[in-house]
Amino acid sequence: MNEPANPPRGPVTRAIPEGDDRERLVCADCGFIDYENPKIVVGAVAVWEDGRILMCRRAIPPRKGFWTLPAGYMELHETAAEGAMREAREEACAAIEIERVLAVYSIPRLSQVQIIFRARLLSPDIECGPESAEVGLFEWSGIPWRDIAFPSVRWALGHFDETRGPGDFAARTNPPGEAGEY
Amino acid sequence: MNEPANPPRGPVTRAIPEGDDRERLVCADCGFIDYENPKIVVGAVAVWEDGRILMCRRAIPPRKGFWTLPAGYMELHETAAEGAMREAREEACAAIEIERVLAVYSIPRLSQVQIIFRARLLSPDIECGPESAEVGLFEWSGIPWRDIAFPSVRWALGHFDETRGPGDFAARTNPPGEAGEY
Repeated sequence: MNEPANPPRGPVTRAIPEGDDRERLVCADCGFIDYENPKIVVGAVAVWEDGRILMCRRAIPPRKGFWTLPAGYMELHETAAEGAMREAREEACAAIEIERVLAVYSIPRLSQVQIIFRARLLSPDIECGPESAEVGLFEWSGIPWRDIAFPSVRWALGHFDETRGPGDFAARTNPPGEAGEY
Repeated sequence: MNEPANPPRGPVTRAIPEGDDRERLVCADCGFIDYENPKIVVGAVAVWEDGRILMCRRAIPPRKGFWTLPAGYMELHETAAEGAMREAREEACAAIEIERVLAVYSIPRLSQVQIIFRARLLSPDIECGPESAEVGLFEWSGIPWRDIAFPSVRWALGHFDETRGPGDFAARTNPPGEAGEY
């Protein structure tokens, strides 16, 4: 008989690993330590030539039916900017070009960091991806303010509006071509 | 006998979970899915009143013996700025005040995002924490350029030097007091 009498449980026990200073989730069956880390959401305020902003109405929970910016969890082995471009493609079939980091938001309750870029929409041809019920380009006055999905969507729109000019300082990203040096 | 003939192995098998579109690490014993996410490093270029910059010589691998900025993995339930303050405290017993986001670096090979702040050192009294062999305050001309631990330390120092002025645009962080709205 190869099956254990009790099936393994996964990392559900809290313990302080040797040499560490705080509790981690540990699997009592095999000792695997699940180091939980904050998660990164990447997204963009993407703007068409005429100033209209790309937004998506959510087809899935949380906040199904409410409007958001294209954004989602960053994946392994991509840059934050690549992740934001991927999310615009997945959620609105939109091609965007990243301009600069607009904002970095921390949401400690959710252990989440959101990195939001300012971006140019390269074509007004957009379409719903599987997570969107509707996609649209909104003038500032037409933004569905009463049906916004998350506080950070409102923050990002406000920060975008405050920083429409070119500005002379933006948060920096990797020097071109240097990521490969690691 | 309660022990399985073969001990559980933890999430070491690669498979595409139902409804997902890419491979994840799965535990073949209990089905636990280990969603691997990029990790966040938070750190600071922290400057004393006279312009000298706080640096730490690493007492541990990787790059033991080389100089770095105070930085490390962000923990759960803290903001990026709180994490950068904690790292300065842990690595150099330094009290710092965050000014603004200086840079956001992506290192896709390591699936890492580094969020580096510009900060003020509140006191020149610094001391080695357990991960530092030496800590110091460096004038620009005295920075140990030949013994820098990581490329992003060089990037951050360069970006700091480029943006010494107040500037009129910085990447934004949470509106004051609004993180609790989530």
